[in-house]
Amino acid sequence: MNDLFVALIHHPVVNRNAERVTSAITSLDIHDIARAGRTYGVRAFYVVTPVHALRELAGRILAHWETGHGALYNRTRKEALAIVRLSEDLDRTIIDVEQESGAAPVLLVTSARTRQPTLTYTALRRMIRDTERPLLLLFGTGWGLTEDVIGRADHRLPALRGTDTYNHLSVRAAAAIVLDRVCGAREEEEEIRT
Amino acid sequence: MNDLFVALIHHPVVNRNAERVTSAITSLDIHDIARAGRTYGVRAFYVVTPVHALRELAGRILAHWETGHGALYNRTRKEALAIVRLSEDLDRTIIDVEQESGAAPVLLVTSARTRQPTLTYTALRRMIRDTERPLLLLFGTGWGLTEDVIGRADHRLPALRGTDTYNHLSVRAAAAIVLDRVCGAREEEEEIRT
Repeated sequence: MNDLFVALIHHPVVNRNAERVTSAITSLDIHDIARAGRTYGVRAFYVVTPVHALRELAGRILAHWETGHGALYNRTRKEALAIVRLSEDLDRTIIDVEQESGAAPVLLVTSARTRQPTLTYTALRRMIRDTERPLLLLFGTGWGLTEDVIGRADHRLPALRGTDTYNHLSVRAAAAIVLDRVCGAREEEEEIRT
Repeated sequence: MNDLFVALIHHPVVNRNAERVTSAITSLDIHDIARAGRTYGVRAFYVVTPVHALRELAGRILAHWETGHGALYNRTRKEALAIVRLSEDLDRTIIDVEQESGAAPVLLVTSARTRQPTLTYTALRRMIRDTERPLLLLFGTGWGLTEDVIGRADHRLPALRGTDTYNHLSVRAAAAIVLDRVCGAREEEEEIRT
C-alpha cells in the first residue's frame, strides 16, 4: 500500500566519461525531490553518500529547516524535508527499509541509458497498489547509476522519453516525472470517482 | 503539430502572503526547464521578467553555455539552453510567439491553486497534436501566477496532485511533470506502434 521509498545515489555513479565517481550533494536536489516525494506519498527519501562531510553538510541544511529559521519561515518546506534520511551506502539503505517495513524492498532503477526495461510505469503503478513488499526506487546523480548498481535491481524502468532522442533531464526533474507517472492522481480515475 | 511554447513568469506573481511581487531569476530554473523543454519538444522557453538587470544576468548565463567555457564542457546543456529566450513581459511574449507562428497562441495556465480547471491534461495532449494554433503554457515562480494572469488564460489546467493534499512542488518539477503528461512518449502507444 504505497510503501514506496526513494534513494538518491551519489556513489557509485558515472561521470560524463563513464568513469566511476562520487558526486557532490546538491542542496536543491534534496529540496526538490523531498517536495515531490512528499507530494506523491513517498515514505522516506534517502540521500546516499559515503562522504561523511557531505552527510554532515546535508544534516545542517535539514536542521535549518527542521528547527532553525527555515522552520518558521516555511512550514511546507519543513514538512517535505521531514521525509529525508541520510545514508552511507545502498546496502545500509536497503537494511533500513527492511527494518522499517519488515521485508526486503523490491529494488527499482531508472536511467536515461536503459535499453531493455523490465517493467513499465503502468505496471509499477499497479505494483505499488497491490504488493505487500516495500519498493525502493533508485536515482543516480552525475551521469547516472553504474552498471553494477543497475545489475542489482529487480527491475529496470524505461528511460523517460519525450518527442525525440534528447533526454538530458536533471535528476530532480526525472524523479518528479517518475513519481507523477506512478503515484500521480489521474483525471480518468477522478472522473470515475466523482 | 507540437507548436508548444513555455513561459516562466517572474512578474506579476504572488508571494507567500498573496502579495503581488517580482521574483528573482533562479539559474537552475532556466537550466532545468530548458532541459525538460528540449526533451519534450518545446519550441521556445521564455524567461519573463521586467527587471533589466536580471535579464542581463540571465543573458550572461546563457552566453557562458552558448559560446563560453560551458559550450565546450557540456554540449547537451548548450543544446537545451538554445531554446531559451528572454522577455520583458507577458504581452511581448505573446507577440513574439504570434510573429513566429503566424497566429495568436492559446494561453494555458497551471497553478497549484486551481480549483476549477477547464481542460484536462489528456485533452491538452490531443490539442497539441490536432490544433494548428500555437500554445503558450505559463508557469509562475514564487507562490504562483496572479489572478489577473490566470484570468487572461484561455484554459486552466488541473493542479498537479499526488496522494494527499500536499502540493508544494518546485516550479522546475511542476514544469517537468506537465510536459511529460502532455508530450511524454507513452508505453501504451509504443506497444501499439511496435
